[in-house]
Amino acid sequence: MNSSNIRFSNLVLYSYWRSSCSWRCRLALNLLKIQYEYKAIHLVKNGGENHSEEFHKLNPAEKVPVLELFDNQQNKKVYLNESSAIIEFLIENFKNEKVSLLPEDSFLKAKTRTLYNHISCNIQPIQNLPVLNKVAESNINKVDWANFWINKGLENFEEMVKETKGKYCVGNDITIADIYLIPQLYNARRFNVDVSKFSNLIEIESNLKDLDEFIKASPENQPDAEK
Amino acid sequence: MNSSNIRFSNLVLYSYWRSSCSWRCRLALNLLKIQYEYKAIHLVKNGGENHSEEFHKLNPAEKVPVLELFDNQQNKKVYLNESSAIIEFLIENFKNEKVSLLPEDSFLKAKTRTLYNHISCNIQPIQNLPVLNKVAESNINKVDWANFWINKGLENFEEMVKETKGKYCVGNDITIADIYLIPQLYNARRFNVDVSKFSNLIEIESNLKDLDEFIKASPENQPDAEK
Repeated sequence: MNSSNIRFSNLVLYSYWRSSCSWRCRLALNLLKIQYEYKAIHLVKNGGENHSEEFHKLNPAEKVPVLELFDNQQNKKVYLNESSAIIEFLIENFKNEKVSLLPEDSFLKAKTRTLYNHISCNIQPIQNLPVLNKVAESNINKVDWANFWINKGLENFEEMVKETKGKYCVGNDITIADIYLIPQLYNARRFNVDVSKFSNLIEIESNLKDLDEFIKASPENQPDAEK
Repeated sequence: MNSSNIRFSNLVLYSYWRSSCSWRCRLALNLLKIQYEYKAIHLVKNGGENHSEEFHKLNPAEKVPVLELFDNQQNKKVYLNESSAIIEFLIENFKNEKVSLLPEDSFLKAKTRTLYNHISCNIQPIQNLPVLNKVAESNINKVDWANFWINKGLENFEEMVKETKGKYCVGNDITIADIYLIPQLYNARRFNVDVSKFSNLIEIESNLKDLDEFIKASPENQPDAEK
């Protein structure tokens, strides 16, 4: 049974197959059983389709993901950006009986937000494409740069997660923290971080990676995936 | 009248006067009328007090802010980190009749979160102290680096805020978006960004800066402030 909302309908996700922030949203949409249309935005081709005039109107920061929705109250299409804002919005507005993605307990809820913010604020922004392009103009090797920040950030995450870990990052229910971890581990491997030393993270990943929602959301299974 | 919570009490904020993420929490605490104790952690002296063994136990990422609380349910002191997680926790658990910091309307709530995440994910992480220290090892000038990212990020914010702006970032009530904007403008000036061109942001700032809660939270009014 799909989740739906009276006010918001016709969801379209502007996404790039390899963008970790788009990936997070695909995971949340799948886990909450929300139907959506996929619209590919190529971040590299022609200098980046995200820099087009048309896309700029949807998100002045010229980044994916963008979530388009029809708002029946305002009677028009509306656009949301920033993956954390999008996912918190989906959780609050498309409630699903079986999956909540945030624990009910107020302390564990805060811990879940701490974990995902650690990735969204302390790791991913420093290794994303625009920053790496800027680093490439210097005498620092961009793979070394990404490797350094991801390694440091995941070392901290490995230690932080001990407090709440069960089968997943926080107990035995999937939360937003898991949604952020999986794409970050993918990026870690892309930049040659030895993730085998993060035994908690690897264990959590092994409990998640074969679930349908995770397989469906992975980069290689998107319509715009490249070899 | 101060806000309180049955489960959580005895709040202590581990803060550094100039840390923009600590500043955000001070603002939220003041606006929600929550009493707290201030504990200074010096980020520079002796290589950074945040890197001590003692502080590492409170936050493995060795960053301020950390919020300590006594949890009457678990009957022990607990610790939260990451300013966004801390502030969302305070809003949900220390409700204040007059101030909510997040709009009730689900669309505006998501827009508020988009705005603050734009600062917490796209601007601040790239110009914070550990990143600048790393940049200083390269042939890039660290002031130029910080200037570039803050300028670009605030240009985007200036455009994004037009959709929701009233007296403040989102309508005429103070929200988390305002809490993130003020410290980011301070950092912008520190790194020589010409903020006068951001007319919307300057107007919002002028409506906020003389409020008691903002004066009390500003870096120069903290016990550990330096000349």
